[in-house]
Amino acid sequence: MAGKFITIEGPDGAGKSTIIKLVAERMEADSAIPVLLTREPGGIRISEAIREIILSPENTEMDDRTEALLYAAARRQHLVQKVRPALLRGETVLCDRFVDSSLAYQGAGRKLGMEHVWAINQFAIEDTMPDLTLYLDIESHLGLERINKGRKAEDLDRLDQEDLAFHERVRDAYLLLLKEHPERISLVDASENIESVVDACYNLIRERFNNELF
Amino acid sequence: MAGKFITIEGPDGAGKSTIIKLVAERMEADSAIPVLLTREPGGIRISEAIREIILSPENTEMDDRTEALLYAAARRQHLVQKVRPALLRGETVLCDRFVDSSLAYQGAGRKLGMEHVWAINQFAIEDTMPDLTLYLDIESHLGLERINKGRKAEDLDRLDQEDLAFHERVRDAYLLLLKEHPERISLVDASENIESVVDACYNLIRERFNNELF
Repeated sequence: MAGKFITIEGPDGAGKSTIIKLVAERMEADSAIPVLLTREPGGIRISEAIREIILSPENTEMDDRTEALLYAAARRQHLVQKVRPALLRGETVLCDRFVDSSLAYQGAGRKLGMEHVWAINQFAIEDTMPDLTLYLDIESHLGLERINKGRKAEDLDRLDQEDLAFHERVRDAYLLLLKEHPERISLVDASENIESVVDACYNLIRERFNNELF
Repeated sequence: MAGKFITIEGPDGAGKSTIIKLVAERMEADSAIPVLLTREPGGIRISEAIREIILSPENTEMDDRTEALLYAAARRQHLVQKVRPALLRGETVLCDRFVDSSLAYQGAGRKLGMEHVWAINQFAIEDTMPDLTLYLDIESHLGLERINKGRKAEDLDRLDQEDLAFHERVRDAYLLLLKEHPERISLVDASENIESVVDACYNLIRERFNNELF
């Protein structure tokens, strides 16, 4: 593949979507290489239809493993129709969440086992792994406070406590992946203000691909 | 699981659906145990919605791996909502096609690799494997002649020739599975007339589960 494949990952409340948009804008200004900013299902018809089944509020009976297989299917089609063609054209692809999200959320958060969720995702993506993954790290209670707009962790009720345990499993999984794949995944402290986080992400991309992209 | 899980498998043109219906009728007459006859997606809402995406004639851009993941997802939900509850109630479940179909059709027919397709299906079904699989064997050209209502294999055009090669890969895969799992899979010669095939299937079930079901 000629282009670079960069993913952004992290728990809810880390600010991924805002950050990656600003990073993409700076890259478009500074890099001669076209940038594609995307996230699953990304307007791909089959992936959108699959996502509709996942998100339908009617489907309360959805089994966790069914859901994980559907995410993998949507990922596959988005990869084949959107990500790989852009990489083949030599473009830089910035993708908001990818395989690590499934490992962290389904594998650890929902306790399906990271190695089992990896098996179905390996089938989905084959050898198309990101060249660089920016992991936006934030402590779970801070991430949850951000999502809940300033409610303190001490005020959480029982369901929110379960939520906190879930998010702690997700963060621990990301930290484990970081430890296992230091050559691919770089940590960015997402508790800082937006400008600092964007700077940190941008600098990591420049350090990694300087001559190739800039 | 208290009930027995029996699947029927075979290439197109083997007559599976007709046969299994007649076998189910005989079992309902002779066995004190309730019989559930089903096939994916089996009226399970999420599985039906998934199958709609697979079969939609609009979705010509569907990747083979996406399709295999969707089949596994539909299988999972059908298993969780329909097959397992019936087995837990002690019923005999007769299922028209199950995991071996994916191994033969997607793994061998579409050349995704039987071991890769097994990986995603193992995620979907965990340890719920059939107690007995009736494999209805028929030579590929005979099966195709049946589907095409009597057209001889010699008259096949180019596309049909590709079709024949596909069906030969499917049959070879079933024969390989039979060789690898003789304790689970039993071969029935499906070139015989319907009554003989039904008799053979029924006798295999009686031999296997006599004291438990009859």
